[in-house]
Amino acid sequence: MLSKNRIKQINALQQKKFRNESRTFVAEGHKVVAELLRSSLKIREIFATEDWASENAHKYANTPISVCSADEIKKVSAMQTACNVVAEVEMRPDTTASALDKNALYLAMDSVRDPGNLGTIIRIANWFGIDTILASSDCVDLYNPKVIQASMGSAFRVNVVYCNLPEKLQEARALGMPVYGTFLNGDNIYRASISPNGIIVLGNEGHGILPDTEALITNRLYIPTGAPAQTAPESLNVSTATAVVCSEFFRRRIS
Amino acid sequence: MLSKNRIKQINALQQKKFRNESRTFVAEGHKVVAELLRSSLKIREIFATEDWASENAHKYANTPISVCSADEIKKVSAMQTACNVVAEVEMRPDTTASALDKNALYLAMDSVRDPGNLGTIIRIANWFGIDTILASSDCVDLYNPKVIQASMGSAFRVNVVYCNLPEKLQEARALGMPVYGTFLNGDNIYRASISPNGIIVLGNEGHGILPDTEALITNRLYIPTGAPAQTAPESLNVSTATAVVCSEFFRRRIS
Repeated sequence: MLSKNRIKQINALQQKKFRNESRTFVAEGHKVVAELLRSSLKIREIFATEDWASENAHKYANTPISVCSADEIKKVSAMQTACNVVAEVEMRPDTTASALDKNALYLAMDSVRDPGNLGTIIRIANWFGIDTILASSDCVDLYNPKVIQASMGSAFRVNVVYCNLPEKLQEARALGMPVYGTFLNGDNIYRASISPNGIIVLGNEGHGILPDTEALITNRLYIPTGAPAQTAPESLNVSTATAVVCSEFFRRRIS
Repeated sequence: MLSKNRIKQINALQQKKFRNESRTFVAEGHKVVAELLRSSLKIREIFATEDWASENAHKYANTPISVCSADEIKKVSAMQTACNVVAEVEMRPDTTASALDKNALYLAMDSVRDPGNLGTIIRIANWFGIDTILASSDCVDLYNPKVIQASMGSAFRVNVVYCNLPEKLQEARALGMPVYGTFLNGDNIYRASISPNGIIVLGNEGHGILPDTEALITNRLYIPTGAPAQTAPESLNVSTATAVVCSEFFRRRIS
């Protein structure tokens, strides 16, 4: 049985402050917890129903597994719909912003605040083979439970580096790397020239790419709309735009 | 001041059953409510803070506007974060599944259950100029508040037609229209031949395209991953896959 104190500790991990104190975070649900097996992350403890434990415990050798009632799982879960397994996981050591590889392609996020968006962007980056995401320091925290959930395990494989974004973009420019951003008045992305390296900057949900960052963009891109002006949406969601841009960069690379 | 009864009525609209009884739904937040002005939808009543009303009321001629306290708005809102305006809106007449236009491009959703995904898919369709989405009858309801929210107004412009999906796909095949679906073993979408018309089928979040539907697919597509097998995600989220597929179809059309 879980003590009240332990439940309180796990719940506290929904807040960044307590995650940073304990240097642990929470991963939930069978799929996401299974993805931990493919990572080098260390699981501190698993809380699971008897059913989950009897089927899966053997895969998690040397990991303490506490068998709990469904009701107890619910108490330590941050999700709205119940799941059958919750893991407390040790964070990776902080990735400090190492020097950029001028031949690599990066994503950069300028003040992305929604955890669902960050998780989805991480999953997209992972799919298209982008290893590192640069995040301005005001982006939502990587270890937010909703980020971990939406990334479906990709958060365990992609490096998310919190940094002074304008400084990093200046570094990129000094290396001769192009810095891309999407705008409503950029070049048609399907026709613009695109390089296999560089940094693709994604903007804030409400305000897009912020002015200080925009000043550092070298290549302005535009995702054209197929709708007539009177019925076109004002914009695309940031994770949708990320999918379109990453897909197009990837298509060019393999063409 | 809002009566308890009226608050109860508006809250009931979070449930499909009550929406179908009153033939109304709820749209919230300044951006989404502003999009109603671009639509032919009839607003039954607006609940707004004094600030919102003094700036915007003049745009909504002939619409009853109830000025409410921020606290009252919160009581009628389905959103977690407070907004300053909530509208009760009349549904469009049910779009019955009219005959397919064999020259048009459609999206079709096979058991898409997550309202955020449906809303995002509608916004993507709208962006890329796709006017009609066919939805299997077990898809989440178009008028779910989270769908309306995630679509950011596109739900007012795109037709979502609930139908017997296999029947519609058979109709498409009889017309000689290609029926596309994405699978892990399809043809590389960047290289496959793609027509400007047809139906693109999107699958359920957990199970993908269901077997009865899969049997009706004529063209299997695959979005290639750029990650090595040991670090690639298992799949893409359905709305991400929709963004990639719609972008590629649109690119081909304008190329």
